[in-house]
Amino acid sequence: MSEIQTKNEVRTESEVRAKALLARKAAAVLARLATERKNEALLRMADVLVRRQDEILAANERDLERGRRQGMPNGLLDRLMLNPSRIAGMAEGLREVAALPDPVGDVLEIFRRPNGLEIAKVRVPLGVIGIIFEARPNVTADASGLCLKTGNAVLLRGSSSALESNRSIVAVLRDALAGTAVPADAIQLVEDPGRGAVDDMLKANGLLDVLIPRGGASLIRTVVENATVPVIETGAGVCHTYLDASARPDMAEAIALNAKLSRPSVCNAMETLLVHREFAEGHLAGLLGKFRDAGVELRGCDRTRRFAPWAKPAADEDYATEYNDLILNVRVVDGLDEALDHIRRFGTMHSECIVTESAENAERFLREVDAAAVYHNASTRFTDGFEFGFGAEIGISTQKLHARGPMGLPELTSYKYIVRGNGQIRR
Amino acid sequence: MSEIQTKNEVRTESEVRAKALLARKAAAVLARLATERKNEALLRMADVLVRRQDEILAANERDLERGRRQGMPNGLLDRLMLNPSRIAGMAEGLREVAALPDPVGDVLEIFRRPNGLEIAKVRVPLGVIGIIFEARPNVTADASGLCLKTGNAVLLRGSSSALESNRSIVAVLRDALAGTAVPADAIQLVEDPGRGAVDDMLKANGLLDVLIPRGGASLIRTVVENATVPVIETGAGVCHTYLDASARPDMAEAIALNAKLSRPSVCNAMETLLVHREFAEGHLAGLLGKFRDAGVELRGCDRTRRFAPWAKPAADEDYATEYNDLILNVRVVDGLDEALDHIRRFGTMHSECIVTESAENAERFLREVDAAAVYHNASTRFTDGFEFGFGAEIGISTQKLHARGPMGLPELTSYKYIVRGNGQIRR
Repeated sequence: MSEIQTKNEVRTESEVRAKALLARKAAAVLARLATERKNEALLRMADVLVRRQDEILAANERDLERGRRQGMPNGLLDRLMLNPSRIAGMAEGLREVAALPDPVGDVLEIFRRPNGLEIAKVRVPLGVIGIIFEARPNVTADASGLCLKTGNAVLLRGSSSALESNRSIVAVLRDALAGTAVPADAIQLVEDPGRGAVDDMLKANGLLDVLIPRGGASLIRTVVENATVPVIETGAGVCHTYLDASARPDMAEAIALNAKLSRPSVCNAMETLLVHREFAEGHLAGLLGKFRDAGVELRGCDRTRRFAPWAKPAADEDYATEYNDLILNVRVVDGLDEALDHIRRFGTMHSECIVTESAENAERFLREVDAAAVYHNASTRFTDGFEFGFGAEIGISTQKLHARGPMGLPELTSYKYIVRGNGQIRR
Repeated sequence: MSEIQTKNEVRTESEVRAKALLARKAAAVLARLATERKNEALLRMADVLVRRQDEILAANERDLERGRRQGMPNGLLDRLMLNPSRIAGMAEGLREVAALPDPVGDVLEIFRRPNGLEIAKVRVPLGVIGIIFEARPNVTADASGLCLKTGNAVLLRGSSSALESNRSIVAVLRDALAGTAVPADAIQLVEDPGRGAVDDMLKANGLLDVLIPRGGASLIRTVVENATVPVIETGAGVCHTYLDASARPDMAEAIALNAKLSRPSVCNAMETLLVHREFAEGHLAGLLGKFRDAGVELRGCDRTRRFAPWAKPAADEDYATEYNDLILNVRVVDGLDEALDHIRRFGTMHSECIVTESAENAERFLREVDAAAVYHNASTRFTDGFEFGFGAEIGISTQKLHARGPMGLPELTSYKYIVRGNGQIRR
């Protein structure tokens, strides 16, 4: 907190505080609702979103206009843009979440102690979840649905460029909750566009139980480095694919191309290709030609550039960068140890892959690489809540505490111990 | 970080950083060790602790002497003091940890996706655990044992009053590791007595995977409010016992007395007794007399003071205080709702108890109270890793993320997804 507070900052702090307090009260009600009541609310939210799409689209158009006026790049405009099909997608997402099993109330363990105490470990909601996100306004509906299903209230803070859209979606969702068992206050949007509002969320210990940032590397870094509320770090992915000496050339090529090209802008896409020198001799020139044909800019080590003279030289800074774009680092290594060293140094503990026919090398890679998801002979692009079969995803955790990898509904819960006795006291 | 760094602060920072880096390297080795290798190291640590107890006791005597000279209170001196029996207890603790099952490598889930991918969720160590603790030097050995067993390296920071003792114990433990498979660098002690060293630990993102503070409320608050490394908040307990209208008087009395008197200085001891007005009419005067006879200072609401005129009046500040001492707040309430409101307002989500013969009230209490452990007809003093049967305890978490309540060995682990394919790519 700066020493001199402007009036605006004072106002900001009270907005976060006031809305978080409302969310806490709603969370206490929500935590005790039966699954059916929560599902009714989710289905109603889906219906009303579609029914009132015109006002959402009008609000979105105002955001888009302002963006165009301010010279927002086309990529960002596309992420900001809503249309009937995208709203239908948001509604469908809510319906799918309603159909998923409710983890709250699950008995994780139950045991009886020699003194007769019966101890049950039971899933409960986390409480109030703060979500700080960028651009895409669909996160407003998606995150609200996942939080409500798991009995949590949510305090949302989107980017100012999407404020009109987010405000409209939240108003519609809150209206939809009227007449359901879920209190409208379970969904809160922080509207203050200033940086101060984010700071307030980062320090809202006792009001927020967890913060989940969803966005680019710089947003995530800001949250992790400044928050005192517990954070689940998501997303940043400098993912590697290592083609071992014994890799089957056709499989190696398919996996490498898929890891980079199927969707370069996402966190589980490959940023660096590591290639055993023996594999490189026979197959690297051809593979790099295909990347070039697909419009990928290559940055390579010296040995790589013998196979692809058009590649730029790669520096450490490149190896550490999450491009999320058609740019790829390529490095030829002498073997598994060098590949493991490289991943240890530059990886972000997200998703890492080895392509090999050697069972021994595969097992070493799977055991020794410290990442949320480690792959043998499959594309890193599978690190995803839906691809893992969770039916939902609030983000992909790259930290080790609480949750790691794709987070579905159970990752939005905690637990408590319920102890039943008949007069036991401690000696 | 202050803008002007003194030379001391610069040195401090590099001590934490240098030792955390050594710990990280050791952690990579430790993470892959077989259970048997880790157990051998733990048993050897136990043996060498006992064999070299004289030098530990001599170091402890230097701490005690300085403490006495500086007027340290007797309670603190007792916590600081080591003797052969306490060292034998530390050694025994290490042997017990060696005998516990190793959670690392456990397959938590394994499933096959329609595309043939086999996904296993496997327990792995957290990495490097930072522990900031007060007074008791036995934490040095206890925490090292729990961390090593779970494949984690540990960076310890004790209080400066115990520096000689901690340094000696760590030196002995590290020596004991020579000739075992566990690298000595897996145990690190931050020796700089300055506050700057703690600050460095709080901000050591990327070097420490988690921080666990063990100590009083002020230490824990400092860590929670300033750390950007993920924290597991432990310990602070403003625990309540609510005696409902239908409580059996003998059971209610036994539980209330046990919750306060069996060990007033610990976090699961009762700080506030809530009593239904009907129960109070028949039984409160007698119960409060017993507390008085046991030397407990009472602070009561107006209605309480009708039954115990000698009690001081209780203010909100009292209700919010963890005394850890022979002081007790007492409040007469009109019923369960008022008790629940009081706990919501003043509880620290640690341990809460209802004594009642009403199944309905018991279930409402167990469901609605948001705490790590909720009890029906049993003393809150059971919130403890050993009493729960975990065989170990690194602390009692009062947060909801990652771990809640008593933390045993599994709570010192994370997991990763190991994905095995045969060429799968994402469409």
